[in-house]
Amino acid sequence: MKMKQENYLLAAIAFMLVPLSAFGKTEEKRVTSYVNPFIGTGAVASSLSGNNYPGATVPFGMVQLSPDTSEAPDWGDASGYDYNKTKIYGFSHTRLSGTGAADLFDVLLMPTTNNEMSELHYHAPVMKTAYNASFSHEQESARPGYYQVKLLDTNINAELTASTRAGFHRYSFPEGAKHQLVFDLVHSRDKGGWGTRIINSQFKMVDEYSIQGYRVITGWAKLRKVYFYAQFSQPIRENVMTDGYTFYRNNSVVNGSHIRGVFEFDTQADAPLLVKLALSPVSVENAKENLEKEIPGWDFDATVAVAENTWEQELGKIKIEAEAIQKQIFYTALYHTFIQPNTLSDVNGEFMAADYSTRRLKQGVHYSTFSLWDTYRGAHPLYTLLQPERTGDFVNSMISQYETYGYLPIWQLWGQDNYCMIGNHSIPVIVDAVFKNAPGIDVEKAYEAVKQSSLIPHPGSPFTAWEQFKYMPENIQTQSVSITLEMAYDDWCVAQLAKKMGKEDDYKRFDARSQYYRNLYNPKSTFFQGKDDKGNWMEPFDPFKYGANGGYPFTEGNAWQYFWYVPQDVYGLINLVGGEEVFAKKLDDFFTLDHQGDLNHNASGFIGQYAHGNEPSHHAAYLYNYVGKPWKTQFYVSKILNEMYNNTSSGYAGNDDCGEMSAWYVFSAIGFYPVNPANGVYVIGSPLIENASITMPSGKTFIVRAKKSSPKDIYIQSVTLNGNKYEQTFIRHEDMMKGGVIEFEMGSEPSQWGAKKEGRPIDWGF
Amino acid sequence: MKMKQENYLLAAIAFMLVPLSAFGKTEEKRVTSYVNPFIGTGAVASSLSGNNYPGATVPFGMVQLSPDTSEAPDWGDASGYDYNKTKIYGFSHTRLSGTGAADLFDVLLMPTTNNEMSELHYHAPVMKTAYNASFSHEQESARPGYYQVKLLDTNINAELTASTRAGFHRYSFPEGAKHQLVFDLVHSRDKGGWGTRIINSQFKMVDEYSIQGYRVITGWAKLRKVYFYAQFSQPIRENVMTDGYTFYRNNSVVNGSHIRGVFEFDTQADAPLLVKLALSPVSVENAKENLEKEIPGWDFDATVAVAENTWEQELGKIKIEAEAIQKQIFYTALYHTFIQPNTLSDVNGEFMAADYSTRRLKQGVHYSTFSLWDTYRGAHPLYTLLQPERTGDFVNSMISQYETYGYLPIWQLWGQDNYCMIGNHSIPVIVDAVFKNAPGIDVEKAYEAVKQSSLIPHPGSPFTAWEQFKYMPENIQTQSVSITLEMAYDDWCVAQLAKKMGKEDDYKRFDARSQYYRNLYNPKSTFFQGKDDKGNWMEPFDPFKYGANGGYPFTEGNAWQYFWYVPQDVYGLINLVGGEEVFAKKLDDFFTLDHQGDLNHNASGFIGQYAHGNEPSHHAAYLYNYVGKPWKTQFYVSKILNEMYNNTSSGYAGNDDCGEMSAWYVFSAIGFYPVNPANGVYVIGSPLIENASITMPSGKTFIVRAKKSSPKDIYIQSVTLNGNKYEQTFIRHEDMMKGGVIEFEMGSEPSQWGAKKEGRPIDWGF
Repeated sequence: MKMKQENYLLAAIAFMLVPLSAFGKTEEKRVTSYVNPFIGTGAVASSLSGNNYPGATVPFGMVQLSPDTSEAPDWGDASGYDYNKTKIYGFSHTRLSGTGAADLFDVLLMPTTNNEMSELHYHAPVMKTAYNASFSHEQESARPGYYQVKLLDTNINAELTASTRAGFHRYSFPEGAKHQLVFDLVHSRDKGGWGTRIINSQFKMVDEYSIQGYRVITGWAKLRKVYFYAQFSQPIRENVMTDGYTFYRNNSVVNGSHIRGVFEFDTQADAPLLVKLALSPVSVENAKENLEKEIPGWDFDATVAVAENTWEQELGKIKIEAEAIQKQIFYTALYHTFIQPNTLSDVNGEFMAADYSTRRLKQGVHYSTFSLWDTYRGAHPLYTLLQPERTGDFVNSMISQYETYGYLPIWQLWGQDNYCMIGNHSIPVIVDAVFKNAPGIDVEKAYEAVKQSSLIPHPGSPFTAWEQFKYMPENIQTQSVSITLEMAYDDWCVAQLAKKMGKEDDYKRFDARSQYYRNLYNPKSTFFQGKDDKGNWMEPFDPFKYGANGGYPFTEGNAWQYFWYVPQDVYGLINLVGGEEVFAKKLDDFFTLDHQGDLNHNASGFIGQYAHGNEPSHHAAYLYNYVGKPWKTQFYVSKILNEMYNNTSSGYAGNDDCGEMSAWYVFSAIGFYPVNPANGVYVIGSPLIENASITMPSGKTFIVRAKKSSPKDIYIQSVTLNGNKYEQTFIRHEDMMKGGVIEFEMGSEPSQWGAKKEGRPIDWGF
Repeated sequence: MKMKQENYLLAAIAFMLVPLSAFGKTEEKRVTSYVNPFIGTGAVASSLSGNNYPGATVPFGMVQLSPDTSEAPDWGDASGYDYNKTKIYGFSHTRLSGTGAADLFDVLLMPTTNNEMSELHYHAPVMKTAYNASFSHEQESARPGYYQVKLLDTNINAELTASTRAGFHRYSFPEGAKHQLVFDLVHSRDKGGWGTRIINSQFKMVDEYSIQGYRVITGWAKLRKVYFYAQFSQPIRENVMTDGYTFYRNNSVVNGSHIRGVFEFDTQADAPLLVKLALSPVSVENAKENLEKEIPGWDFDATVAVAENTWEQELGKIKIEAEAIQKQIFYTALYHTFIQPNTLSDVNGEFMAADYSTRRLKQGVHYSTFSLWDTYRGAHPLYTLLQPERTGDFVNSMISQYETYGYLPIWQLWGQDNYCMIGNHSIPVIVDAVFKNAPGIDVEKAYEAVKQSSLIPHPGSPFTAWEQFKYMPENIQTQSVSITLEMAYDDWCVAQLAKKMGKEDDYKRFDARSQYYRNLYNPKSTFFQGKDDKGNWMEPFDPFKYGANGGYPFTEGNAWQYFWYVPQDVYGLINLVGGEEVFAKKLDDFFTLDHQGDLNHNASGFIGQYAHGNEPSHHAAYLYNYVGKPWKTQFYVSKILNEMYNNTSSGYAGNDDCGEMSAWYVFSAIGFYPVNPANGVYVIGSPLIENASITMPSGKTFIVRAKKSSPKDIYIQSVTLNGNKYEQTFIRHEDMMKGGVIEFEMGSEPSQWGAKKEGRPIDWGF
C-alpha cells in the first residue's frame, strides 16, 4: 500500500546483487546464508521496489538498526534506506519494513573523525544540521542480524548487530583518527507530514561510559516516548551538544526539542569503538534493564552469532531445496515476513498501552506494527503456521488495544491506531488463530473483542449505517465498495467464531452481514459499484478508474481489482455473476485487459488489470481453481512468482507492506495460498520449489515435493498425498498438521488435474 | 508577568462587588466568609486585573472547577474567566490563577436542555462547535470551595464544588426540561499559540451512570495526559458524540482528536443532576480511585462543607481584626496564594515525572505549577511560614524534576518546565525551606540539586559564560542585566547552603558569583547596563526603556526597576552607587519620575517608575529602611496597600501571578516583607491590619498589633517586641518562631523610629 507510482517494468534492467558462484544447487549451507537483505531496498531507475532495509535486527525485534540514506525519510524511502542513494546520514534504531508511510527512525548515531569541536563557541555556527558520508555498495555487506559499510569520507568501517531491544555498533576508525560519534535526536521522518514534531528530548551523561535519554515525538504514530540507554567501550573525553542554535560543551544534560550531540572518545586504545544502545517505550530505567539483560557483555561477534542463530532457527522452519537464486528470493522473503510485528514491551513486561498509560504484562510479549489490511491476507496465516507462540501474543496485543481503546487495531504502530487503510482485519487474524489453536488466547475475550469491534462504530466503520442499509453508502462512508467487500469478509469471520462458541443469534446476524456484498453488485455492469444512501448507483461508473484512500468507492484499486474480493463465498460470487463460464471469462479478461487509466500510486506489477504490487489482487490468480480451470491458476501464479520477484534491490513489484508481498511468495513458491485467510484451507497454485519441508505447529513435518524436469514444468499433472492420489485443488490446514508428504508431478503442458467438480476448493476446512 | 498592557488607572471606576453591609468591623464570622472569589477576575474598562477565577477548588487542588467565559481562553483571560464577559461556555476542571499565559481547561462540562439529539444523522451538521449560555452577576455567587451561576438561556442553576482531585457538579434543571450535558474534550487554551494540539482523546461509556476517558494534549505544557472518570446521579438514556464532523449515536466509545459528546439523562426523578468527575495524570484507573477515595458519596452540600472547612482551617492560620473590606481583600489574597502549587499525584502516589515516565511517591504529594520568577519573592516565603509540610513536598517535587530532568524548575506546569521567565528561583525556595527546617527534605540531595542547577548550563542559564565573563554578556544570553542580577541572588542562596554544610570551596565559588552584579554597574549612568562579551557597554542606553522577554538586557522592566535587585547585598549596592544619600535620592527619583516610554505590557500599577503590577519592583519600597529613612518605606508601602488593591473584580494592579501579588499584600498588610526571600529576615513596612495573629510552624503564635486612631496613621512611632522597646526595622524569622507580640504605635506623621544605624535590616537572620 501507499507508495508513489513508478514504472515497475524498468526493474528488468536491475543488476544482480549476488555473485555468479551462487548459481547452482546447494543443500548443506545454513539457510541464513541465502538471505540477501538488499533485496527490495531500492527501485532500479524509476521502478518500484519493496521499501525494505538492509540493516540488523533479530526476528520481531524492537530495535531495527540500519543506515538512513536521507536526512528525513518519507514515502519513497519509508524504511530509511534507498539502494540508489550514495550517502548515509547515520544509523537509527527503529523503522518500518516495506510500508509506504515512514515513521520511527529513533536515535541516529553516526561515527565521524572530523568534527571541529574545539572551534565551537556559544552561538557560533555549531554543528552541521546533519552529518553524512558517502558509501559504495562495493564496501557494504549485510546478512541476517549483521550490517557493515565503509564510510568513504572518513574511512570508518561501521558494523551493526542487534538483540530484541538493543543495537550493538562496532566502529573501526582509521589509525590515529579521532573517535567521534554524533548522536542525533532530531532525525525523524520528514517533519512536513503527519504533524511530525518532537515534543521534548534529552541527553544525559550517566558516566564517561554511558549516556541515557529519550525523545517524545508525535508523527504517524500519534505519541511515542522512546527512552534509550547507551554504553561505550571507550570513555568519553569531550562532548558538544546543541539544541537548535544553542550550544553546550561537556554538559551533563541537555533537554530540548532539537538536540544533537558529538561525543569524542579516548583513542589511547586503538581498538574499535563499541556502542550498545537499548530502547524502551516506558522509561530510561527499563532501557537500562533491557540492555543489561540482553547484551551484558562486549563481544560484538558473539552478539552477531546469537542474532544469526536466532534467524537460522526461525527461517529453518521451512527447509527447501532449490537453486541458489530461488533460495535467496525465498529465504529473504521469509526473512522479511519475520521483521515484524515488533516487540513493544520491555524485558520486565512493561509497555505503553493504547490509552498511553504504562501497563505490565503478566506473561508473553507485547507486539505492535500491525499493517493489517496488508498482512491479514498472507503474512498472518504464515505466522499462524510458523509462529504459533507469537501468534498468541500478537492476538493478545490486539486484544489489549480493544480493552483500552474500545476496538481492535486497524493499522497499529507503536501501540496506537493510525486508522491507515480500511476494514477491521484484526478479526480474521484472531479468528484464524483461535481456530488453529494458537496458544495463550482467552477465547471468550477474543470473541468479545471481535464482536464489539464489529458493532461499535469507529473511524472507517460506521456499523449503524452498515446494518441500516446493508451496504456502505458512499455518501456516508467513502471507499464504500472496498469497505463493503472487506467488512462482509470480516463479518463472516465473526460469524464462524460465534458458531463455534454456540452463539446462534450472533452467528445469524454476522452471517447475514457477510452477504451484504451482494447489495453492491450491479448486474448491468457485472461489477460491484458504489451506491448512495437512497440506493442510487454512483454515476458515471468506470471499472478501470482507480480510487486512492478516500473520495471514491474503491481503495487503492479499481472495480476490476475489487470484483474478486469475496473470499468467504467464492461460489456465491460465481453464481452472482452468472455461473462458472462467465466468471472464468471475467478472470481471463482481468488478466489480459491492458487498459490503464489514471492509476493509483499503489497499483503496479500488472498482468492486465491484475496488479501484484498491491494487495487487493493477491488471491485472484487462485480463483481459476474454483471454476475448474486450475491450469490457469498454475499459469498465472507461476508467472507472478517468476516475473514479479527477483533477487535485486528492486526485487518486489511494490511495497513489501510489512512482509505481505513476501508472504505471498513464500506460500505460492511452496505451492498454495490462503485465498480465505481464516477458513483452514490453502488453495493449490503452481509449486516453484521442488522440495519444501515445513515444521508445523504440531511439531510434525509436512513435505511438499514438486518433481520437475525443467523450469518450464509449471503445470500440475498429478498429485499424491501420503502416497494416495489427490485430486483436490486445496489442502486442509488440519491435514498438514498431521504431517506427511504431498507430491506434485509437474509438466510443461496444462493438464486436467483438479478440474473436476470434486476438485474445487471448499469453503470451510475445519 | 506576561499580560497585555492596559491602563490600570481606569480601575478606579470599578464598581463594588460587596454589599454595603460588609462595611464596619467584624470579628466572629468565619474567615472564609470574607473571601470574595470575584476579586481579580476582570479588569474594569481597560484596566488591568489579576487574571483570577471565581470557581471551586480546595487549597492546592488538582481540580479547579470554574466557568470558562470564552471558547478558547488566551492572554487576556488566562484563568478562563473574565468578569466583563456575558456568556459561559461551560465548566472545566483545571486552570491557572493569575498567570498571563493560559493553559489546562480540561474536560469542559455544560448542562443544556435544548440539544436536538434526534435530528442528528451521520454527516448532518451535528453539534454546535461550542455551547454557551448568557449569565448575569446578579445570579452568580462564589465562596471558597463553591461556585453558583444561573444559566439564563436554559434556566439551569449550576453549582460546583471540588475535592483535591475531583469536581462535583449540581445542575438544577427547570421542571419538565430535558437533562442534557455536553462533555467537551476539544475545549482548551487558544490553539493558535504554543503549538497547542490534541494528540488523542477518548470517551468511553463504563455503564449508564459512568463515563471515563482522557485527552493527551500538547500546549504551553509540552505534554499532558489527562485521564478522567465521571459518575452521574441519573442514568444516561441517550448520547451523541462527535469527532470533528463524524457523528456517533449511543456509541460506547469514541476516540479522536476533536471529540465532544451530549448525554441525555433520565428525568423521571425530577431532582438535580449530580456529576462527580475526578482527574489523574496517570490512568483512568487512578482517576476512578481518586474519585472513590475523595468523594465516595453523593452529598453535594457535605462536599461543599468539607471544602469550605478545609479553607477555613488553612486561611485561619492568620487571624486578623479589621474592617470587612480589609478582611475581604486580605483573606481573598491569602486564598489566592493557596490556589497553587497544584497537586499532581494521585491518591495512590503515582504521577507523571518530568521525563514523562510514570513514577510513584513513597510519601507525600507531588506538586506542580511553580511560577517561580514570581512566587519565590513572597508566595514561597509565605508558604514556608504557613504551609511547612507542603513546603517540604514543594521542595521534593522540584528536586524530582532535578533528578530526571537534570536541573530544577524554572516555570513548571503539569510537571514540566516551560522555561518561562529567567533565573533559577527554585534555589531560593529550597534554601529558604532548608534553613527554616521544612520537614521531609533530604538536605544533601537538596544541596546537590541547587548546586548542579547552578553549574549545568541550560536554557536561559549559560553558566560557562557566567563564570568566564563574571557577568552575562547580552550577545551570548539576552535579558542579560536581569539575568545577571537574579542569578547573582540565586548564587548567594547556594553559597549560604554550601556554608551551612561546610562546603567551603563551593561557598567561596558561589559567594564570588553572588557579587557578579557589580560588573554590570556603570558608574557613569549609575545604572546596571548590558555589556557584550568584549566588555563594551551596549549603546544607546535609556534607563526608561523597557525590555520584554528577550532581545534586550531587561526582562519585563527597565533599568530603573532592575536597579534595586540586589537583595543579597543591599549595603553593597548602596556603596556601589555612592552611599546612603545618593541611594536615597535615587529611590526618591524612582518613586517620582513620571516619564514613561514604550512600556512593557507587564508594567502597570505605577508610582513614578515603580510598577507594582510586575514583580521586579516588589521589594523596592522597603529599601528606605536600609538608608535610615523608614518613614518613606512606610509611606510607599501604605500607599501601595491602599491604592493598588481593592475588593472589586479589578482588585489587583496586574496579574496575580499564581498568588505573588496576593502574597505581597498578605505580608505587607501585616507589616513586613521578605526583601531577601531566603535570609531569615522580614523587613518592616507599615502595618495596615491592627491586629494579626499568625500560627507559626513551631505551633506558637506570633501577634502583630498596630494601634491606630485613624486610617491616616500610616507611620510607625514606636515598637515593642514582647513588651520591650524595639528599634530594628526588621524581624528575624527565628524570633517569630518563638511566638510573642510585636506592637506598633502608629501615627499620622513620620517619625524617626528605626532611623538609626542599628535599626537597619541585617543581611542574615539565622
